[in-house]
Amino acid sequence: MENEKKKIPAICMADEEQLDGRKKLDKVFSAQNYAGLSPNRSSLQQLSESYRVWAQGYAQVENAIAVLSDLKSRKSHVYYGGFSRMLHLGDSEKDTHLSTIWEEEIFRIVHPDDLQSKMLQELAFYHYVKRLPSGQCSRFYLAACLRMRSRTDAYICALHRLYYIPMPGSDALWMALCLYTPLPVGFPEGCFIVDSQTGQSTPLEVGASGMSLLSDRERQVLVLIDRGLTSKQIAEQLSISQHTVSRHRQEILAKLRVRNSIEACRIAGQLKLL
Amino acid sequence: MENEKKKIPAICMADEEQLDGRKKLDKVFSAQNYAGLSPNRSSLQQLSESYRVWAQGYAQVENAIAVLSDLKSRKSHVYYGGFSRMLHLGDSEKDTHLSTIWEEEIFRIVHPDDLQSKMLQELAFYHYVKRLPSGQCSRFYLAACLRMRSRTDAYICALHRLYYIPMPGSDALWMALCLYTPLPVGFPEGCFIVDSQTGQSTPLEVGASGMSLLSDRERQVLVLIDRGLTSKQIAEQLSISQHTVSRHRQEILAKLRVRNSIEACRIAGQLKLL
Repeated sequence: MENEKKKIPAICMADEEQLDGRKKLDKVFSAQNYAGLSPNRSSLQQLSESYRVWAQGYAQVENAIAVLSDLKSRKSHVYYGGFSRMLHLGDSEKDTHLSTIWEEEIFRIVHPDDLQSKMLQELAFYHYVKRLPSGQCSRFYLAACLRMRSRTDAYICALHRLYYIPMPGSDALWMALCLYTPLPVGFPEGCFIVDSQTGQSTPLEVGASGMSLLSDRERQVLVLIDRGLTSKQIAEQLSISQHTVSRHRQEILAKLRVRNSIEACRIAGQLKLL
Repeated sequence: MENEKKKIPAICMADEEQLDGRKKLDKVFSAQNYAGLSPNRSSLQQLSESYRVWAQGYAQVENAIAVLSDLKSRKSHVYYGGFSRMLHLGDSEKDTHLSTIWEEEIFRIVHPDDLQSKMLQELAFYHYVKRLPSGQCSRFYLAACLRMRSRTDAYICALHRLYYIPMPGSDALWMALCLYTPLPVGFPEGCFIVDSQTGQSTPLEVGASGMSLLSDRERQVLVLIDRGLTSKQIAEQLSISQHTVSRHRQEILAKLRVRNSIEACRIAGQLKLL
């Protein structure tokens, strides 16, 4: 009881934990059902080709480094726009194909703390997107400030944008488009889920400094839900009203974009919230 | 003498003056030499086709409204991404071709004051880009906050980005790519010239509230330069040292990206600075 009232300590991730975030992403990607009602192979190839050209467009038009990863066949195309000249990237000016979804050469120059957060942010965003109504997924992207090592060996702030692209006629997220550009004027520190249709931005903080998608109180409530306590019992433990518990519960479901407490606990577990 | 010490009044543009900005843009575009050393027709067609696909990519990936205008043949392609659903744009969800470089349907929903500024910003940016060393032009774009009428008839803030695309082997700016999206988190009010390789953003304020690319003092100095006064005479008139006059003069040339005072006066005239 005493314990629950304490602030949940910030999560400090060791190397294994960062790798763990990546392993978790690998796991969720490979657990997806890519078959579904997906259309024929040639129309998929056509769509995949369109995205390759669009990724190339980002490199050409706005000097971005654009990485298009196929989560199913686990391959990536990397397009190095002019921004790569600012970075400690060797002379990798030429577009490259990778037989992995992880662009190691770029990860190598991301600040280790930010790389840790990045993996957990992408995992959180994956779960966010998967819970959206069908067809809504392409409206949202992840935008985060990221420290990257420049060619002078100093860190500079970059913007990382991540778009998950669903496979038509299926529940699976098929491709991921990652864009790296210099940080735009005014962009605040941190990570946001952005609705590209309305511009609404929801802060998402996951990582070395703890997960603050949920407030401390919401995390306390969720921990108790996970232990199987009823709303009444939670109210007693935290010395708050049942009404307040139920308000926190609604807020938790909304923030994690899940339908019920069981799902909330499962996702929260994956996000190291519990 | 008395006059020069006064603050130069803010420019208040009437409708004709806004049209004037547009006419000036029309004039500079049509005065360009598109022939130059340009490569053969088919490779130009190929590049133009690439940009059409990339514009379509912006509509698809980030829900942008993307307008690609050919400044030579004076035609445009408009791609209506999901953002158009937020705006007072009728049901123009389908991509359209226009036989003009001015996307009237979109201008119609831009706040009149912002539309006025937009034209002068684009003119200023045109001159900025034209003065860059060859090959550097694609590094820069214009980013401005713009009020647009939403489908509920209220104004919402949008981001307008403009990329001028040079014709290979020529001095001419061949195409303009305009992207309209919701305003990103943190983006400050105003207009910026952005170096997409380094992220450096230079504020550019042109329009109804006056041109503040130059400081008031720099404008005073420029007015006197335009009247043919020497640095010594200017120093006397403004009661400042000759050294300060020459510092202002250097700053004016740098800000307007021109090589000498004669060019500065010409550009400043076009920007209604004198």
